Amino acid sequence: MTKENKIVIFGGDQRTVHMIQQFAAFGLEVIVVGFDEMHFNHENITREVVKDSIFQDAKAVILPVGGTDGRGEVVALFTTDKLILTHSYIEQLPSHAVVYTGIANNYLVDLLEKHHIHYNILFNRNDVAILNSIPTAEGTLQIAMEQTNHTIHQSEIVIVGFGRIGITMARLFKAVGAKTTVVTRNADEKARIIEMGCSFLSFESLEKHMHRFDICINTVPSLIVTKNVIDQMNAQSLIIDVASAPGGVDFSYAKQSGIRAVHALGIPGKTAPITAGHILADILVDLMSNQS
Amino acid sequence: MTKENKIVIFGGDQRTVHMIQQFAAFGLEVIVVGFDEMHFNHENITREVVKDSIFQDAKAVILPVGGTDGRGEVVALFTTDKLILTHSYIEQLPSHAVVYTGIANNYLVDLLEKHHIHYNILFNRNDVAILNSIPTAEGTLQIAMEQTNHTIHQSEIVIVGFGRIGITMARLFKAVGAKTTVVTRNADEKARIIEMGCSFLSFESLEKHMHRFDICINTVPSLIVTKNVIDQMNAQSLIIDVASAPGGVDFSYAKQSGIRAVHALGIPGKTAPITAGHILADILVDLMSNQS
Repeated sequence: MTKENKIVIFGGDQRTVHMIQQFAAFGLEVIVVGFDEMHFNHENITREVVKDSIFQDAKAVILPVGGTDGRGEVVALFTTDKLILTHSYIEQLPSHAVVYTGIANNYLVDLLEKHHIHYNILFNRNDVAILNSIPTAEGTLQIAMEQTNHTIHQSEIVIVGFGRIGITMARLFKAVGAKTTVVTRNADEKARIIEMGCSFLSFESLEKHMHRFDICINTVPSLIVTKNVIDQMNAQSLIIDVASAPGGVDFSYAKQSGIRAVHALGIPGKTAPITAGHILADILVDLMSNQS
Repeated sequence: MTKENKIVIFGGDQRTVHMIQQFAAFGLEVIVVGFDEMHFNHENITREVVKDSIFQDAKAVILPVGGTDGRGEVVALFTTDKLILTHSYIEQLPSHAVVYTGIANNYLVDLLEKHHIHYNILFNRNDVAILNSIPTAEGTLQIAMEQTNHTIHQSEIVIVGFGRIGITMARLFKAVGAKTTVVTRNADEKARIIEMGCSFLSFESLEKHMHRFDICINTVPSLIVTKNVIDQMNAQSLIIDVASAPGGVDFSYAKQSGIRAVHALGIPGKTAPITAGHILADILVDLMSNQS
C-alpha cells in the first residue's frame, strides 16, 4: 500500500464488515481496527490493533455508521477493546485526510473542526437518504406484517410525511396492495401523491379520519400523532414511527390508551445490514476516488 | 331462529372466530359449538355444548378450515372438550343440509357420502385459492424479509410454478422491486410472465441458473428442488417451499448442504387469520344464501 492511499476503518458493525469486503473486492487496500474477532480472507485487508500511530499518513478514516458517542467511543462489535476517538489519534491525520461518518454529534464535529480536519457526514446526503429509504420502508413493511393478523393488501394505511422516506414508503405499501393515504402540507407533494394513485389527506383532517386507518406510519420528526389523534384511533390499529428520536408520536399516551406503537429506529442496519453496508460502500468508493 | 336457517359452527380456530363475527354482523344466526372459552357479544351468536341433537334441523354445518383428522376429530382451540364428528351427529342432519369444510380427507368424505350429505370443500374452489394466495404471498414475503439480511428490493428471486399462488407471488415480489424470474413449462404462462415484466426460465435451465438466485420460492407440489438443483445454490441463499406436504424440495439434502430451506404451510391461518377468515366468510355467506 502506498502511504497516499491508506484507508483506516475505525470500528463498526455488520454493515462495516460488508463495506470492508466491498472495498477489498473493488481493489482498495484497507486497514481495519477493531475487528480482532473477524477473519477476513483477502490480501487487501490488514487487521491492526489500536495504537497511537494508527491514523498516520491516512488518506481516509471511516467511522461506524453511528459516529461516536458523547465521549468519543465508537461501536466496535468485533473486538473486546474499547475504541475511543480522541485528540491523540486525530492530531496525527495529514491535512488532506477526510473522516467519513454516517452521523455526527457535537463531540465528533468539535473534535474534527478543532483540528481542521475535513469530514463528510454521509447521512446528510440526499442520495444516501433516498437509498436508505428502501431498507427503511421494507423493514417497516416487515414490522407491519409481523404486528397485524390481517394482510397489508387492502389494509387502510396512512403515511404522515412525503419526504425522502415518505415517498418510498407510499410506493411500497401501494405496490403491495394497501389502500394508501399520505398526509402532507405541500401542494406539489399532494400532486405527486395523486399521480402515484394514493389518496391525499391534510394535516388538519388527520384527526377526523384517523378512525378508519389500520396502520399509521409517521416519518415526520415532530409531534404529529398527538393525544387527540390517538383518541380517534381504532383499538386494533398500529402506529409505526420511523422518525428519528424523539419521534412524532405521544408514545406514553398511546400506551396508556392501549394503542400499539412501535418506534422503529435504524431499521436498515437491523433488517438489511448487507444492503445498508452496500449503499454506504458504493458512495464511499465514489467519494474516496474523487478525493483530491 | 327459524328451524330452516339453523347454521352450526362445529369447532375452529382464530379464523373461525372472525367468520362467526362476520356472519353475525351480516344478520345470520349461528350456533357455535366448541367455543366455551370465547365470549361473543352479539345476539345472533348462541353458544352450545356438544350434544347428540346438535345437528338436528341444521341447514348448514361449518367445520374448521382443516376439516377432520383421520378419526373425525376437529380442531377446537377454544374449548377443552374433544369435538369428534361421528355418524351419531351426521345421521341427524336433514337431507337438504350442506356441510362446509376447507379441506376434506377420506374419513370425512366417506362419512358424508355414506349418509348422502351434500358437502362443499372450499379450498377446491378457484376463487378461494386465488384469494388465499394473497395472504400466502404476503406471508412468504414476510419470511423472506425475516430470513435475509438484505432487502428484497433488487434481490434475485426465482419462483417455481405459475399457478394460482405463483402468479400472486410473482406480482408481489416484482412490486416490491425484486428481480423476479418465474419457472414454468407452459407457453401461455411464459407469455404472461413476460407481460408482467418478470423473467422466464424453463424447468430444464433451473439447475444451470440456480447459482445466481438469492431466494427460491417453490409452489409446485412435486420434487423440483432436487439434489442437483441444491448443489448449484449459493451458500447464502434461501429456499421457501409453499407447496402442500411433502412439498417440492429435498429438505434433508438441503439441510445436509447447509442451504436454509423453510417449508411454509398454512401461511394464511398463521400470518393473517383475520383475512383468511374473511375470505371464507364472504364465500360462505354467498353459498349459504344460494342454498336451495
